[in-house]
Amino acid sequence: MNHSQLFGNIKTKRSFLCVGLDPEIEKIPSFLLKENDPVLSFNKGIIDATHKYAIAYKPNIAFYECLGSEGWKTLELTVRYIKENYPDIFVIADAKRGDIGNTSKMYAKAFLENMPFDAITVAPYMGEDSVAPFLSYNDKWVVLLALTSNKGADDFQYHDEDGIRLFERVLSVSQKWGSTDNIMYVVGATRAEMLKEIRRIVPDHFLLVPGVGAQGGSLEEVAKYGMNNKCGLLVNSSRGIIFADNSENFDRVAGEKAHEIQIEMEKYLSERNLI
Amino acid sequence: MNHSQLFGNIKTKRSFLCVGLDPEIEKIPSFLLKENDPVLSFNKGIIDATHKYAIAYKPNIAFYECLGSEGWKTLELTVRYIKENYPDIFVIADAKRGDIGNTSKMYAKAFLENMPFDAITVAPYMGEDSVAPFLSYNDKWVVLLALTSNKGADDFQYHDEDGIRLFERVLSVSQKWGSTDNIMYVVGATRAEMLKEIRRIVPDHFLLVPGVGAQGGSLEEVAKYGMNNKCGLLVNSSRGIIFADNSENFDRVAGEKAHEIQIEMEKYLSERNLI
Repeated sequence: MNHSQLFGNIKTKRSFLCVGLDPEIEKIPSFLLKENDPVLSFNKGIIDATHKYAIAYKPNIAFYECLGSEGWKTLELTVRYIKENYPDIFVIADAKRGDIGNTSKMYAKAFLENMPFDAITVAPYMGEDSVAPFLSYNDKWVVLLALTSNKGADDFQYHDEDGIRLFERVLSVSQKWGSTDNIMYVVGATRAEMLKEIRRIVPDHFLLVPGVGAQGGSLEEVAKYGMNNKCGLLVNSSRGIIFADNSENFDRVAGEKAHEIQIEMEKYLSERNLI
Repeated sequence: MNHSQLFGNIKTKRSFLCVGLDPEIEKIPSFLLKENDPVLSFNKGIIDATHKYAIAYKPNIAFYECLGSEGWKTLELTVRYIKENYPDIFVIADAKRGDIGNTSKMYAKAFLENMPFDAITVAPYMGEDSVAPFLSYNDKWVVLLALTSNKGADDFQYHDEDGIRLFERVLSVSQKWGSTDNIMYVVGATRAEMLKEIRRIVPDHFLLVPGVGAQGGSLEEVAKYGMNNKCGLLVNSSRGIIFADNSENFDRVAGEKAHEIQIEMEKYLSERNLI
């Protein structure tokens, strides 16, 4: 999927919502535990109920790996389910990978070739050759960590060389590795005011913004500081949607929560005359 | 396994060799392809032939993930095989994970709890709370990326704030998160002379040094600049051992290659009066 197709989907659905598929076996409705693959059944319920309001899904790979090889199977079936039923939806592997070129190539094969993910989150620490293999696929994307929403972001991301902080260096240097058609950046929503500074460095790139909802970020501020003239935002919500209810109505309630967010997003898109 | 047990194993085996288990299906001997799980058979052959000379194995997770859920199964069986047959061997998941606390906790569960790995490699970009969950297990280790051996290491790892480069900040800050009993650092062997500077910051920690052999590092220099009075080194070799031969003798030749390295390591340990 390229940049203009993604923007097209945002305009059609009047939404820039990404739903995080981070299923915890302890938190999914108990009636699903009798299913053959409870996590897959849970994911299908969430996907069917939210797809009208979401333009992207983001399975967090840790939540599948902690279930072993069976969890990996569930991940494969989840991604396939999305792409077979809702092919316009953008699917991001939240994997935070990144290794020497030879190894990153194998991770790229795992996520962008063997599974039909559109994008993968990548950590920048090891530099260009650790990211390049993910950029060698047509219409596939790297979502590179820039400024994250957790407390530990302060430990290294603000390390400042001559007024250029590490996350700013990541943004400016990595832009040259690809284009606005295959690189996005992770920018945590708990630092929404930082989006203004970040937009000076990457005015045109899509930003993936986690941390709205359970992690405390404000959607209004994210839209205010981060939106550009092609929207340029994917805002993620996980727990606030997928665990909103744990009864037999979990899917309906998840759909309602996603719809509420979509309505708010429509307002911001409309205020900017993007729809 | 704690620091003194690891040093004990080094003295007993007169070796600080870590063998990288990075099997590529295209490179393993063709006669193994008729096996039910060729990669597992390959790994078992390599492990049985090299365990006398190695104190650690390091499966690179990408090489299993690129084979899908079946590959993950092979990984689980490989780690179990090592621990059941050679329980004194230290096993490192070369996974380069690292995410917000809630997610890192799931990765920790996957590798340190569900599978019997002793250690996992972690990327430092997201800071303390992304690393802490891996440090909450007794006798398990984090191997934190500091200075890597690839070209891209230059992009960010040398970012310099008031004379302190990013990799140096990673070393000094992260020391406080754990101890010499649960944190090691990745330091690339292609920069062996840097080990001298690194030893000024972390004199007592174990260093995992990849990049000897195929990646061009010199074992002699690594020992010269990196060894401390408890050895303090795990030096990895992958391709130079596991793909030394692709006939039916692949395991015997791998064992010979590992033995050659062990003999050289014994010399350096002996010169330092550590054995």
